[in-house]
Amino acid sequence: MKEVSGGVCAPRGFRAGGIWCGIKASSRKRDLALIYSEKPCTAAAMFTTNKVKAASVLVSMEHLKGGVLRAVIANSGNANACTGEAGIAAARKMAGLAADLFAIRPEEVAVASTGVIGVPLPVAAIENSAESLADSLRADESGHAAALEAIMTTDTRKKDGAVEVEIDGKPVRLGGMVKGSGMIHPNMATMLGFITTDAAISRELLDKALRRAVKRSFNRVTVDGDTSTNDTILVMASGMAGNAPIAAEGPHWEIFADALEHLCVTLARAMARDGEGAARLVTVRLTGAATEDAAGTLARAVASSNLVKAACFGADANWGRILCAMGYSGADFDPAAVDVGFASCAGEIQVCSAGVAAPFSEEKAKEILSQEEIEIVISAGQGAGAATAWGCDLTYDYVKINGDYRS
Amino acid sequence: MKEVSGGVCAPRGFRAGGIWCGIKASSRKRDLALIYSEKPCTAAAMFTTNKVKAASVLVSMEHLKGGVLRAVIANSGNANACTGEAGIAAARKMAGLAADLFAIRPEEVAVASTGVIGVPLPVAAIENSAESLADSLRADESGHAAALEAIMTTDTRKKDGAVEVEIDGKPVRLGGMVKGSGMIHPNMATMLGFITTDAAISRELLDKALRRAVKRSFNRVTVDGDTSTNDTILVMASGMAGNAPIAAEGPHWEIFADALEHLCVTLARAMARDGEGAARLVTVRLTGAATEDAAGTLARAVASSNLVKAACFGADANWGRILCAMGYSGADFDPAAVDVGFASCAGEIQVCSAGVAAPFSEEKAKEILSQEEIEIVISAGQGAGAATAWGCDLTYDYVKINGDYRS
Repeated sequence: MKEVSGGVCAPRGFRAGGIWCGIKASSRKRDLALIYSEKPCTAAAMFTTNKVKAASVLVSMEHLKGGVLRAVIANSGNANACTGEAGIAAARKMAGLAADLFAIRPEEVAVASTGVIGVPLPVAAIENSAESLADSLRADESGHAAALEAIMTTDTRKKDGAVEVEIDGKPVRLGGMVKGSGMIHPNMATMLGFITTDAAISRELLDKALRRAVKRSFNRVTVDGDTSTNDTILVMASGMAGNAPIAAEGPHWEIFADALEHLCVTLARAMARDGEGAARLVTVRLTGAATEDAAGTLARAVASSNLVKAACFGADANWGRILCAMGYSGADFDPAAVDVGFASCAGEIQVCSAGVAAPFSEEKAKEILSQEEIEIVISAGQGAGAATAWGCDLTYDYVKINGDYRS
Repeated sequence: MKEVSGGVCAPRGFRAGGIWCGIKASSRKRDLALIYSEKPCTAAAMFTTNKVKAASVLVSMEHLKGGVLRAVIANSGNANACTGEAGIAAARKMAGLAADLFAIRPEEVAVASTGVIGVPLPVAAIENSAESLADSLRADESGHAAALEAIMTTDTRKKDGAVEVEIDGKPVRLGGMVKGSGMIHPNMATMLGFITTDAAISRELLDKALRRAVKRSFNRVTVDGDTSTNDTILVMASGMAGNAPIAAEGPHWEIFADALEHLCVTLARAMARDGEGAARLVTVRLTGAATEDAAGTLARAVASSNLVKAACFGADANWGRILCAMGYSGADFDPAAVDVGFASCAGEIQVCSAGVAAPFSEEKAKEILSQEEIEIVISAGQGAGAATAWGCDLTYDYVKINGDYRS
């Protein structure tokens, strides 16, 4: 597997673009993105589990039923959520406008939105800019970059990547972009993620690979406890790599699924690193749980705890909060078998052994925890279940950013 | 029902006291409390649901099996959690020291601790101060106040109360104190609550009244998402009011149970108001849910949301986050039937009607939300289930307090 450039434009057959159409009225930053495939794509997607679903999510869920996509149109600055029937009409209009540009069916277009909830989507602004949106499409990295910019809200960093693997003697590429820095939580809250690939793969196996990858990446990222109305992760496969279509599990599927998982983990880590106001990326590595699911539950509980997150901000080796978070996670484990350590580029240290304090140097712990990327290393001492979760610290800036988001 | 003074010393037969014994080494604030009853008390208690339980909780659970208590000994400054076998021995020692003072059995003594996790409890300090602890006992409000001070950690306000009701022609009193300002969450995280009453009541009906009261008070308070290793709420009934013992449900039990619920709600509200770093008390009143349990789940999800809490801090009428929190709560409801409003001493305003935006004055909303006590008023439009939850805003100070708690 090798990293390549180009993002969603790295795989063959895709073009992308992004413009400012006027939804982000005051900042005049890009707010409308389009990804387009020359060929009909096999498609798979996962959406928010929130009972309150954005109009764009409802419309995309409907369009995905066909399993074939040609394009994704997405806006930032307005979530088109809690907007009633008018919101549904606006989402359909967005899909229709994109479809008209390429003389394809609206059902072949997915729609995504992110931004403030409960404000009518100014769909006229999108309509007036449809032609310039089409003009912005490029098949190279500049198109990818413009589209990515256009889906960002409070994100402070671009989160993207692309990889190449060989399947059936053919180079196969996968590229992706993701937005999301607040309201990130297991179940993919307020993240939009768009992944392209030129692999030839059946819809069923594409879906299976996506679910496995999401479980081990986006669903193990947490910035706060909130899940959003708009989460969408979507993968489109153009088939233009020319590999024999992957239609059964086996070595070819494994290569593809591993590459997809690698890309998703890269994007998920970047999202945690860009947590609203975050100063540190916190990786929780948990081994020795009874099952992978139990390990995931325990690791996520630690990464989600406000008290653990605040301690990370303060570079405070308060390991009791880690055991406490494991204790209310709902997963079964034996507190008396737990070891806890911290690691970073400054070294590593054990702070809890078999459930009780291990003697350690506070000074050394402070040094380790003061780095930009830190790891909480936990052994549950029970079984072979392992999982990694990613989060960030809780900072003054998180409060500041979220104290008055709408203005 | 009337409010009375005296706290846990208001009911007949109780004395309380508190001293500094040396656990809070640097601050030299009171850190050891005792509540003692002249007569054996019928007792009921609820403890943390965290899988990691403090040694004091494990020992108290064991002692409560007998259903009779004479005393509670509690320390602050050290949680005696994640302290292994030595921690259990220390908790037993605490109970034994208190028992020796009054020539009662250790099993008649409950033990509670709060403070930092994972540090051995300096039980010698308690042993050396046992006599002065006994000397500090008073039957009036001063004893109550000293005991309350001695269980406080990051609390900034005293949280206590007492009420009197008439049962069977006799005045019956209930008094209580509670500590807890961080890690507060449904399931009573890091709260210690001690309630006394002179009612004569069977253990079974005391337990039933406590469970109902806690469900509608402490379990609807949330400051952050963390539940602790040490939560304890305990009620002791001396029977000295002289009422005919309450041994069956009926009017007498209802009066008692309502009074206990009133006292618990008073203490729970005070705890939310004193949330670590909180600037505002946020009350979420939810009506129209399918059941009381669904209403409780929805109201708690709103009160717990970091994004809602940060919006309250910013006095930002971001009602979309309220619907969003309801949406991931797990409770069933129809988003299209939800109304949301805000209220405070500055007035009230509706911001969402039938799931979509209602036109409102941002200026008026800002004024309402800028008060110290604000209400989020939600109608789910489905049934007769209602519940109230209490929380607080998320502030810079929360992060500051929790960034380096141990130093």
